[in-house]
Amino acid sequence: MSGHVLALSGGVGGAKMAAGLAAILPPERLTVVVNTGDDFEHLGLSICPDIDSVVYAMAGLNDRQRGWGMMDESWQMMAMLRRLGGPDWFNLGDRDLAMHLMRSAGLRQGLSLSDVTAQLVKALGIGGNIVPMSDDPVQTQIETAQGWLDFQSYFVGQQCQPIAKAIRFDGAEKAQISPAFAAALVRPDLAAVVICPSNPYLSIEPILAIPTVREALLGLQVPRICISPLIGGAAVKGPLGKLLMELGNGANNAAIAAHYGALISHMMIDRTDVSDAAPLHMAGLCVSLADTLMRHAADQSRLAHEVLTAIGIAV
Amino acid sequence: MSGHVLALSGGVGGAKMAAGLAAILPPERLTVVVNTGDDFEHLGLSICPDIDSVVYAMAGLNDRQRGWGMMDESWQMMAMLRRLGGPDWFNLGDRDLAMHLMRSAGLRQGLSLSDVTAQLVKALGIGGNIVPMSDDPVQTQIETAQGWLDFQSYFVGQQCQPIAKAIRFDGAEKAQISPAFAAALVRPDLAAVVICPSNPYLSIEPILAIPTVREALLGLQVPRICISPLIGGAAVKGPLGKLLMELGNGANNAAIAAHYGALISHMMIDRTDVSDAAPLHMAGLCVSLADTLMRHAADQSRLAHEVLTAIGIAV
Repeated sequence: MSGHVLALSGGVGGAKMAAGLAAILPPERLTVVVNTGDDFEHLGLSICPDIDSVVYAMAGLNDRQRGWGMMDESWQMMAMLRRLGGPDWFNLGDRDLAMHLMRSAGLRQGLSLSDVTAQLVKALGIGGNIVPMSDDPVQTQIETAQGWLDFQSYFVGQQCQPIAKAIRFDGAEKAQISPAFAAALVRPDLAAVVICPSNPYLSIEPILAIPTVREALLGLQVPRICISPLIGGAAVKGPLGKLLMELGNGANNAAIAAHYGALISHMMIDRTDVSDAAPLHMAGLCVSLADTLMRHAADQSRLAHEVLTAIGIAV
Repeated sequence: MSGHVLALSGGVGGAKMAAGLAAILPPERLTVVVNTGDDFEHLGLSICPDIDSVVYAMAGLNDRQRGWGMMDESWQMMAMLRRLGGPDWFNLGDRDLAMHLMRSAGLRQGLSLSDVTAQLVKALGIGGNIVPMSDDPVQTQIETAQGWLDFQSYFVGQQCQPIAKAIRFDGAEKAQISPAFAAALVRPDLAAVVICPSNPYLSIEPILAIPTVREALLGLQVPRICISPLIGGAAVKGPLGKLLMELGNGANNAAIAAHYGALISHMMIDRTDVSDAAPLHMAGLCVSLADTLMRHAADQSRLAHEVLTAIGIAV
């Protein structure tokens, strides 16, 4: 079986998976839908952290050592901004700024986020579509002892220190899914949904919170696989482990499977978490094992290949 | 005699003169009013080329080799912008971007250009006030065979190639002079007006085009000196020589003196143009000679000292 693959992705881990899929599938067989719940305005710039992570990874421009942003980055603007007394809690690399400036200018001209993203993707010669989940604003908010914090205040400003009590997605109920996302969901050749190894609560849930998405996914007669973001019961990067404990579900693959419920038919977990396989199988999921850590581009392609193999999709 | 000095300035040459004055006068004795007719919006950024030139020169951050912008500049954003298919006709340095981002954010928050400029000046620890001519938009336009071009299209986009037929300042008639400019004009201790070695047509004329400025200057009972931007009958930098020929006045100091008319009482010309002295004297001006080329900070201070000496102002 061949056909179209619809991937749902957040930032870094998801971006690597998306890049792996893009490396082994022809462009017309892949749509990557990206979380925009972390998007925010900063210094007049429209910043889309997860879209940028996916774009940089798929263009081979992502910085693997730092784990975010662009490779060969410099920080001259930030140094001068600090000297001018400007806000320095969010790091803006010099190369990265070109993305923000171009996107902001396009949005100000009245282009949709989908259109602007398509333009940037094309300019960088990326194969495969990178699509925002929605062209409407959705803002992830985290409830803490200090009240509700927007995502960047929680994630960057406070380094995920506050204990999360709840998460909500402002604007999601009024948002429409992006045209390319909607189109991918009804493709007659849609062959699989891949939920990338991203944070289920912060990166994938905003996508699912948009009306019609959950229903559309549940109605699909194709394999829907989640690649677990956990390795050895912990997140490779980011606050997932902490969030899983705080939100009361436990930091393990069963909690993630329970969270997704009927949305997924398959789950791929890391070999080190093999003990999670039996309960997942008992819960009715097709479970496969893999080395899910992606250090290099070769890991990404290898894992993408294993994912598609596990759900019976020919490359 | 001591007292306050009001300087009118455009970009590079004027900025060096302003920096020289700032180096020898205590901050409370200097107000530098800067042309904003070249200001424009680019990629969503509010760019004020002449204010930035004056700020960089007075902060000792100006690049002397390139002749514009900041020293130790890098161009990573521009390289990526080009790769993204963005507009590359206007060079934005990485360090320079911090100024544009901070200014744009301040203006968007409702601050006036005066307030934002004061904030940046303070952050950089600059002595002396740098003041926009107006907080209202004024746009310098140049008439060419292609019709009216805005300043940046003419100056940067077309490198001043088209023949200028006329110049106008859109918005000037409705603009108000900035509060600090207005305050400086009525200071009881105002001792002198210094017209910096900037382009009279493109850099100083926009300031004079704002209602009340010309009248206020004519009514002042203090020396008003123009430091000629010509050396050996040619401009050190920029299109002045070309413009003087095109606008029919001839590239010499007499044409500049005639242009300013009764607005100036004194003129300082370069030693190489000593033959211009007699006709200027005949025209009723006090004329002094100096080496007006400013290569280093020491030249700036030395020339500023000579300017103030020539009009009887104690430092």
